[in-house]
Amino acid sequence: MSDIERFSKRILDYRNARDWKQFHTPKDMAISLVLEATEVLEHFQWKNEEDIENYLKDNKDKLGEELADVFYWVLLMCHDLGLDIEAVFEKKMEKNEAKYPVEKFRGKSDKYNKL
Amino acid sequence: MSDIERFSKRILDYRNARDWKQFHTPKDMAISLVLEATEVLEHFQWKNEEDIENYLKDNKDKLGEELADVFYWVLLMCHDLGLDIEAVFEKKMEKNEAKYPVEKFRGKSDKYNKL
Amino acid sequence: MSDIERFSKRILDYRNARDWKQFHTPKDMAISLVLEATEVLEHFQWKNEEDIENYLKDNKDKLGEELADVFYWVLLMCHDLGLDIEAVFEKKMEKNEAKYPVEKFRGKSDKYNKL
Amino acid sequence: MSDIERFSKRILDYRNARDWKQFHTPKDMAISLVLEATEVLEHFQWKNEEDIENYLKDNKDKLGEELADVFYWVLLMCHDLGLDIEAVFEKKMEKNEAKYPVEKFRGKSDKYNKL
Repeated sequence: MSDIERFSKRILDYRNARDWKQFHTPKDMAISLVLEATEVLEHFQWKNEEDIENYLKDNKDKLGEELADVFYWVLLMCHDLGLDIEAVFEKKMEKNEAKYPVEKFRGKSDKYNKL
Repeated sequence: MSDIERFSKRILDYRNARDWKQFHTPKDMAISLVLEATEVLEHFQWKNEEDIENYLKDNKDKLGEELADVFYWVLLMCHDLGLDIEAVFEKKMEKNEAKYPVEKFRGKSDKYNKL
Repeated sequence: MSDIERFSKRILDYRNARDWKQFHTPKDMAISLVLEATEVLEHFQWKNEEDIENYLKDNKDKLGEELADVFYWVLLMCHDLGLDIEAVFEKKMEKNEAKYPVEKFRGKSDKYNKL
Repeated sequence: MSDIERFSKRILDYRNARDWKQFHTPKDMAISLVLEATEVLEHFQWKNEEDIENYLKDNKDKLGEELADVFYWVLLMCHDLGLDIEAVFEKKMEKNEAKYPVEKFRGKSDKYNKL
């Protein structure tokens, strides 16, 4: 069993034990994904780089928990939609490589300065 | 090498080849995480359950790509912050189990009806 | 004094009394705007249309407060960036009218079924 | 007619001409509110304070348009839910004043350093 299969099984066992699948429409799961992602962001609000460095010394675990929540919804959405995260991830990485060729984008912030 | 290590290596090789680490502050990565999560949500906007079922027949791959982007930022943030996603995920699942005991929450939407 | 000027003055007096302008970088205010908008969305999570109708009977005021928070950041960002919300709003409405001509979009969900 | 009434009428006339009310469930409007707020945030991604200062010289109008979109959904949601934005805004400001008394929070970043 791969890591991903094992994580997904962990999530499904948790959900099945509680009989919560009935609440998990794709739209509501996508809302959850966004809400959990904003909880990650909230940790960095009103802080400059130095504040963040200090903050992370004592709060890394809290941040890890928020990231775990995002991870949870990614895996559960993939499962329910019949998507193989490993395959879609590899496919997307190849698209990214084609879109941002090394010779053109190396050390360039172009991607990062335009909308 | 575990799946997660392999995915993380894939991301780091991609980033290193482009020398993009210099742009990846924790705050900006967290913003990316949110923006990619909202791209997932955007697919479900203005659609009821039937619309979504039809939509997914032809657009599952597009959705998979957006989920891959969220997955990318979760793994990269974990890497840069020195967090072991496997460990934080397991820890969070145990917290969830303690917070929502089966006997009390089985088939109940309580969790889902309150803020 | 227009309504908007009056609301903006209310916000500025509140902020000045607390000397908080020093924390309000455009980037952090934009993060606040997103976080407050997601608090609005959170009220609708895990609810179908009937649930929402019932929910709104008792919780409309709470929702109003979250919308007020979003309103607050829109006005404050406009103030700090030197934008006249009345002018930018009118300009955007004219753009929308040109983009979605009545004869073509009347009663059509086209806009709403495509990304 | 107050400014707010005038803006709301502008939005309603626009919507009625296109017969779009049928698509505007509270949940989907809340999703729109979030998506438009993230479009504001996107302008600040991957930029430090100096980058943002330079960026705003040439792109303030674009940002104004995104803020106008957020403003649009705040007013339309308030209208459809039967909320008086002026009243809820004033009520929230009074709550904020009680929560953050001047003598305790003046010049303090306390509010801003904790989750």
